[in-house]
Amino acid sequence: MSEESNAKFKIFSLNGNRPLAEKIAEVCGVPLGKSTVKQFSDGEISINLEETVRGSDIYLVQSTNEPVNDAYLELMIMIDALKRASAKSINVILPYYAYARQDRTAKPHEPITAKLIANLLSNAGATRVLTLDLHTVQVQGFFDIPVDNLFTMPLFAHYYRRRGMVGDDYVVVSPKNSGVQRARSLAEYLDAAIAIVDVADETDPESGYVIGDVEGRCCIMVDDILNTGEVFSNAAKILKKAGAKEIVACASHGLLSPPAKANLDAADIKDICITDSVSTAPERHPENLSIISCAELMGEAVKRIHSEKSVSPLFTMERKDYK
Amino acid sequence: MSEESNAKFKIFSLNGNRPLAEKIAEVCGVPLGKSTVKQFSDGEISINLEETVRGSDIYLVQSTNEPVNDAYLELMIMIDALKRASAKSINVILPYYAYARQDRTAKPHEPITAKLIANLLSNAGATRVLTLDLHTVQVQGFFDIPVDNLFTMPLFAHYYRRRGMVGDDYVVVSPKNSGVQRARSLAEYLDAAIAIVDVADETDPESGYVIGDVEGRCCIMVDDILNTGEVFSNAAKILKKAGAKEIVACASHGLLSPPAKANLDAADIKDICITDSVSTAPERHPENLSIISCAELMGEAVKRIHSEKSVSPLFTMERKDYK
Amino acid sequence: MSEESNAKFKIFSLNGNRPLAEKIAEVCGVPLGKSTVKQFSDGEISINLEETVRGSDIYLVQSTNEPVNDAYLELMIMIDALKRASAKSINVILPYYAYARQDRTAKPHEPITAKLIANLLSNAGATRVLTLDLHTVQVQGFFDIPVDNLFTMPLFAHYYRRRGMVGDDYVVVSPKNSGVQRARSLAEYLDAAIAIVDVADETDPESGYVIGDVEGRCCIMVDDILNTGEVFSNAAKILKKAGAKEIVACASHGLLSPPAKANLDAADIKDICITDSVSTAPERHPENLSIISCAELMGEAVKRIHSEKSVSPLFTMERKDYK
Amino acid sequence: MSEESNAKFKIFSLNGNRPLAEKIAEVCGVPLGKSTVKQFSDGEISINLEETVRGSDIYLVQSTNEPVNDAYLELMIMIDALKRASAKSINVILPYYAYARQDRTAKPHEPITAKLIANLLSNAGATRVLTLDLHTVQVQGFFDIPVDNLFTMPLFAHYYRRRGMVGDDYVVVSPKNSGVQRARSLAEYLDAAIAIVDVADETDPESGYVIGDVEGRCCIMVDDILNTGEVFSNAAKILKKAGAKEIVACASHGLLSPPAKANLDAADIKDICITDSVSTAPERHPENLSIISCAELMGEAVKRIHSEKSVSPLFTMERKDYK
Amino acid sequence: MSEESNAKFKIFSLNGNRPLAEKIAEVCGVPLGKSTVKQFSDGEISINLEETVRGSDIYLVQSTNEPVNDAYLELMIMIDALKRASAKSINVILPYYAYARQDRTAKPHEPITAKLIANLLSNAGATRVLTLDLHTVQVQGFFDIPVDNLFTMPLFAHYYRRRGMVGDDYVVVSPKNSGVQRARSLAEYLDAAIAIVDVADETDPESGYVIGDVEGRCCIMVDDILNTGEVFSNAAKILKKAGAKEIVACASHGLLSPPAKANLDAADIKDICITDSVSTAPERHPENLSIISCAELMGEAVKRIHSEKSVSPLFTMERKDYK
Amino acid sequence: MSEESNAKFKIFSLNGNRPLAEKIAEVCGVPLGKSTVKQFSDGEISINLEETVRGSDIYLVQSTNEPVNDAYLELMIMIDALKRASAKSINVILPYYAYARQDRTAKPHEPITAKLIANLLSNAGATRVLTLDLHTVQVQGFFDIPVDNLFTMPLFAHYYRRRGMVGDDYVVVSPKNSGVQRARSLAEYLDAAIAIVDVADETDPESGYVIGDVEGRCCIMVDDILNTGEVFSNAAKILKKAGAKEIVACASHGLLSPPAKANLDAADIKDICITDSVSTAPERHPENLSIISCAELMGEAVKRIHSEKSVSPLFTMERKDYK
Repeated sequence: MSEESNAKFKIFSLNGNRPLAEKIAEVCGVPLGKSTVKQFSDGEISINLEETVRGSDIYLVQSTNEPVNDAYLELMIMIDALKRASAKSINVILPYYAYARQDRTAKPHEPITAKLIANLLSNAGATRVLTLDLHTVQVQGFFDIPVDNLFTMPLFAHYYRRRGMVGDDYVVVSPKNSGVQRARSLAEYLDAAIAIVDVADETDPESGYVIGDVEGRCCIMVDDILNTGEVFSNAAKILKKAGAKEIVACASHGLLSPPAKANLDAADIKDICITDSVSTAPERHPENLSIISCAELMGEAVKRIHSEKSVSPLFTMERKDYK
Repeated sequence: MSEESNAKFKIFSLNGNRPLAEKIAEVCGVPLGKSTVKQFSDGEISINLEETVRGSDIYLVQSTNEPVNDAYLELMIMIDALKRASAKSINVILPYYAYARQDRTAKPHEPITAKLIANLLSNAGATRVLTLDLHTVQVQGFFDIPVDNLFTMPLFAHYYRRRGMVGDDYVVVSPKNSGVQRARSLAEYLDAAIAIVDVADETDPESGYVIGDVEGRCCIMVDDILNTGEVFSNAAKILKKAGAKEIVACASHGLLSPPAKANLDAADIKDICITDSVSTAPERHPENLSIISCAELMGEAVKRIHSEKSVSPLFTMERKDYK
Repeated sequence: MSEESNAKFKIFSLNGNRPLAEKIAEVCGVPLGKSTVKQFSDGEISINLEETVRGSDIYLVQSTNEPVNDAYLELMIMIDALKRASAKSINVILPYYAYARQDRTAKPHEPITAKLIANLLSNAGATRVLTLDLHTVQVQGFFDIPVDNLFTMPLFAHYYRRRGMVGDDYVVVSPKNSGVQRARSLAEYLDAAIAIVDVADETDPESGYVIGDVEGRCCIMVDDILNTGEVFSNAAKILKKAGAKEIVACASHGLLSPPAKANLDAADIKDICITDSVSTAPERHPENLSIISCAELMGEAVKRIHSEKSVSPLFTMERKDYK
Repeated sequence: MSEESNAKFKIFSLNGNRPLAEKIAEVCGVPLGKSTVKQFSDGEISINLEETVRGSDIYLVQSTNEPVNDAYLELMIMIDALKRASAKSINVILPYYAYARQDRTAKPHEPITAKLIANLLSNAGATRVLTLDLHTVQVQGFFDIPVDNLFTMPLFAHYYRRRGMVGDDYVVVSPKNSGVQRARSLAEYLDAAIAIVDVADETDPESGYVIGDVEGRCCIMVDDILNTGEVFSNAAKILKKAGAKEIVACASHGLLSPPAKANLDAADIKDICITDSVSTAPERHPENLSIISCAELMGEAVKRIHSEKSVSPLFTMERKDYK
Repeated sequence: MSEESNAKFKIFSLNGNRPLAEKIAEVCGVPLGKSTVKQFSDGEISINLEETVRGSDIYLVQSTNEPVNDAYLELMIMIDALKRASAKSINVILPYYAYARQDRTAKPHEPITAKLIANLLSNAGATRVLTLDLHTVQVQGFFDIPVDNLFTMPLFAHYYRRRGMVGDDYVVVSPKNSGVQRARSLAEYLDAAIAIVDVADETDPESGYVIGDVEGRCCIMVDDILNTGEVFSNAAKILKKAGAKEIVACASHGLLSPPAKANLDAADIKDICITDSVSTAPERHPENLSIISCAELMGEAVKRIHSEKSVSPLFTMERKDYK
Repeated sequence: MSEESNAKFKIFSLNGNRPLAEKIAEVCGVPLGKSTVKQFSDGEISINLEETVRGSDIYLVQSTNEPVNDAYLELMIMIDALKRASAKSINVILPYYAYARQDRTAKPHEPITAKLIANLLSNAGATRVLTLDLHTVQVQGFFDIPVDNLFTMPLFAHYYRRRGMVGDDYVVVSPKNSGVQRARSLAEYLDAAIAIVDVADETDPESGYVIGDVEGRCCIMVDDILNTGEVFSNAAKILKKAGAKEIVACASHGLLSPPAKANLDAADIKDICITDSVSTAPERHPENLSIISCAELMGEAVKRIHSEKSVSPLFTMERKDYK
């Protein structure tokens, strides 16, 4: 990263996912900037920048995992502080974009909270967003500032290919009818077919059935958000009933909200792979959990953004050959 | 519509789809407002409002079919004229929202034109949008003004139910892997299963295959936009190969761009049903085309908006029992 | 409230302080509007309006007490929902405006969070704010929408006057050097002198001393926010040392964050009076706490705003003679 | 242009007037950037940037000649693409600004489309505009971004001076009563008097008459936009009737909309000089047409803007001595 | 004005031109609203609204004559007060729009102050502007709020027609080359020809000459702004030299800045007619000054705007038959 | 200031306080930029930049002293000119921020003019503000652009310390109940106690009394704005009555509006110290006036801003050891 060494470049982290922020900073070869983020006795967040940011390009890492509202307020307050302290640019790095699922009015009279968040971030002063596997890609269009949405599928493809999980014995499964394209994308990396678990009556998990052929094959379920594990656990039952030989699962963002551990430990899923986009306590981790890091991918993107190279190669590369 | 009779309420139409605008005005019980829209010899559009709109709630109907860019400029110029002439509110009625498919950066360095359009309309002065079956529902979130997105599925459900096309002999098919939820919605109305036509290699239509079971059943293909007919025509071949007994198709917006007529006349599709959201010349119509009108649905929505009743019942109602 | 009976007027409450919202609604003679506010397992807030708001003037009550960040996100999401559901106006009622103390950059590189909040509320779609005893009146100017800032001093004046606490035996004390004008205002109602407790060295509470004469008089301490009770408890010691005969205290907003109860129960303060602007669990209440309601004041303001009468009489009236 | 050689500087062209864009790029010593602009079968424009623009200063050439609405949509979509791809600045070069004549509400209830266009360009993301001989200079003020409006009069002055057309034998004529100042400006370069062709009754071209003295002199008619040639052709008749010896004409922007060729070939005008600001098919060219290029003027301006030198010398210089 | 009698409608005046404001209020049949506008000893303006404006449509009259900057600050401060006091709409009535001549960058590096003023008024909170005979009509497009620009030509036409000044004996003269269209408009009302006084060398008034034929005719000079009288006085000399029989002059806005009285008293101009759009001290008035009032025209426009009738008839009507 | 010598850096001054601007420019080691600011005969301001600013960081010095409205219009017009001439950044240096006291609605229906000014400056195009001792620090939050508010207390502390005015013999006095914190700040520098002059009945200066102990001590009165001198002169009387030994006074901004000289010459104040933030005619100066310059402080801040160093050390430093 020699060429921009004389440019002012700083990475700060808030409280959402400091371990990931530290890894990203390491990939970029800089220490994390100094700042204090604390809560007063009444719950108000207090932020102090402990070094000057005047004229610097700032990359601000915040994963908006639980407590999600504190995470967003932290983020907006920090953006305000950076703006008033004359940062040259404020690049928000959101490994997990909470509220992204509230991207439309599913029922009448509902908010579109994913858009609200986009507006609030822009209004606070963010000048760019770097995120990872948005729930729907259209959320990019909720912003008028540049948004780079990195994909996790190459990471998972690398994970499964290294294990030889390619070809006709495997089928990539969307555990619900709305994630077909994510399954399609992983299937292409693995030369595998796809299938879908559809649920005829949403109030009755038993009404689920498989569209496509999984009999005698190993199913790789893929989803973007792994919250309580119910979707995976129900889909695993339906897949088994349909003759699946073995089931594994992967999800970009492992929220693992209770009772995820209970659900997943009880499910017939051999391996569950998530990224470290979200920071969770070990007590929440199911037994067969593998965590792969998105730090190199995101750090590489930060380096490319800062040296004004194209980020697009990162959208498709499977292995750690970013540089 | 007696309760708002003393409120100022006017419907104007631009050149996109006057027949539909007239039907909507008739549903609302008012004549179309007077205005002139013409093109000068150099291609510039000239608009003149021929009646006062000061203080009125204006409903402006424009279907942005071909020539799409002229249609959008007409729309924005008219909005500017209405704003400067002191209209109280400018409600844009877009039965077809062109560019809605450009809702994300599919490849690196692409625009998000659907968002650009949303910004331009808001910037010009639109205060509300009423549209029909957006390509993706997330486009609603591209706006910060209220957007009502009516659905065509109840119209098509009514069409097929009246013909007795319900139950196990029928399967609703998404002709591509990205339209599963639209198929899911229609299938629920018809108590039918769903299936998907997936294409393994996008450059080779022959690589298509069916996910789900269509053998011996009547397939109802459903899509939002029927452009050149290639998607339907390819999917029909694949469905036939997979044993489909009979195939019909429906699409919300019938653009029917050449060579749609040729493609569809050659395809083994018994009936093709579209709405009149887009106005097309009869020469472009394939032989087995049925057109159902969205005018009553949209007119009813206009009446509800103007009398400040909830539009939400219209999202689910199947029959002409809106009132 | 007969004159606007045919106008559409609705009051909604979020989770911050429902008891107060109910009282305000009662003052206005309308029931609270129906809406659901809940949190998903991952902490995301989900809001659904359960009645139409199209064309209505909405008054939305939310006290932003702890958990303060959840309260603000609730508020902004609800505003977004109301805006998209075509509310005519969105009047935010903030009996307590959290973060109001972060109204300047006290140290270098700090955010001005009170301004950020103002921007976020406006950006989300609020069209007016009604609040109570802002920490500094300048926060009004953080908004470009109308802000009515009601005062609590008339309420406290009424409270003390009813008890005969007027005249030369009483001195109104600001427990810190920055609240002199609030003390001045109450003193005028009570025909009393004022005094200030100043602390020479902020790190040493023992360094406090009294400016003004309190010897042999009853001291009425007044502050806007009663958080942990430390300010009152320290000031009480200093006042006692300076010869105060008896001490009472009042504060507009009783956050009572732990260890407020312990601090205040141990302090030599005979009576502590707060309003119900903030909702707190009874376990947090010190023994000698009196709570007076701001509901009639705020409800009266809502009625005046909605019937387009001037709110200004409410700024000075002492008794319940608003109407 | 050595000093900014290490700065990132790219020129792109859209479909309006590629030959001019290529000449401008040549003047600047850089190749045109790579991008694809095409139309789908349904008329929607699709744009793809084929090289990275991250951090670059972009100069985007688009002449908005016919089809004018396609030209503007192309332009706005490209601006959106550049903005999302993180261009540092987006400098729009509009050799011809279509709709500039709709700069006021000529009749009641009309739009001000020239302002609408300005708003749309700014809203899409343009950061600067460079244009040529705006119909009225006030259009500059329609923008809040910097606008450089270059003049063509020095180019035409150079053209006529080189032919010795200076002094008392010549009179510069405005062919309509609204272009007097443009005539005044050219007359100063040529040491000539001015005259005006006024039309008493706009519906009757025969009612035209000359204000000023043209008898026995060579008339140089000057206008900004040459559309159908009617204005020039009518004015020529009136000038001849008033005794003009010989007539030539010049116009900044040669739209040459049919029946311009017929009108002008039939008119008694010896030479018609236009710039290449607008690209037209040769079939539209009248026989005695001379085209002079504005490429060097505009290219020089681009170089000055990019090297942050003042553009103002270009407003008055007559010859190719810009450097 | 019975139909909107129950609507809230108030007219306020600032210090610019109270006599005109009072006349306009009288035309509208309402008294002027109560407010105090004063200057502190340090020159700061202090404004207090002395009656409620909550929910009212406000018409705010301010002529921005000398001291022009105080007039604009008064106006913007009052708009701010009205906005914060919850006025429903703020309609600014500017009988004279100072700075309108700075509508383009005449020389390099100049501001466009007329646009700045438009932005500042909109930013402060104005929702509509009603003005009179803008220096250039394009200034309307500097706003995105509705602007009604009334014309004075019908008033002057009425003035001259009543005196029988129509037909071939009269010629309407623009005293400078940029006002031809204003002359054209008046000439049409008077069935008269037009002429122009052009000045070859701006630094030498002697270089002026007449384009057109004035010999033996009565010249009616017309301009929009009569500032120091130099333009009229120079043109009068040139017209006399060219054989004019008699000269009169009219101007929409009579600023009459010194030494206007001296210039005009010395000039051979028989009658000078202005409107009362600008308030000036009698000491500044030349001897042969006639003042006609624009109050009925502007008041009629206010009434039409408030009752949501079209203002357009006022653009052309000559006599007092507005109603 | 070597490190940014190759960056483009220019300081311009308007007419408010040229002597201070010249001193600031000298501290920065650059000459003032060339520009013309004049008033036309009708009072309109005309500004012309006489050198290019394209791509430069501009620091624009304007003290908004009397005539305050002219000063603000000058400032906004110049900002507009700089923006249109493509300045890279426009840093407004306001040594005195007029209207800062109108920072809240003191009475019902008042404007918040300090916020209006902030909005107007931002809207015109200012990108940063550097100011000195704002009347209330919350005014910083009226802006969303960075604002550095330098303090004068270190300057006054230096002034008094050099004279040995420290310790128990001195008491820092706020001459009114709203300036306690300014007094507190100076007292800390001087190791002195504080006192307050409170006025029980604002209409009766005789009702003033001292809170705190001043008997036999030297009182240093401190205020931010010294306008007519009435506050100081009244407070001096009250302090004397309370036994003060000697009285001096300091104020950040010396407006000295008449009758300040008369008031202060008659008062028993030994020395009055102000800064040169405001330029006043010598005739207005009371006899015992000392003026200390804020030029080095402000110039140092400009240098730090331009070289992107932290400004924060300047907030506390007492002596001329900024570098």
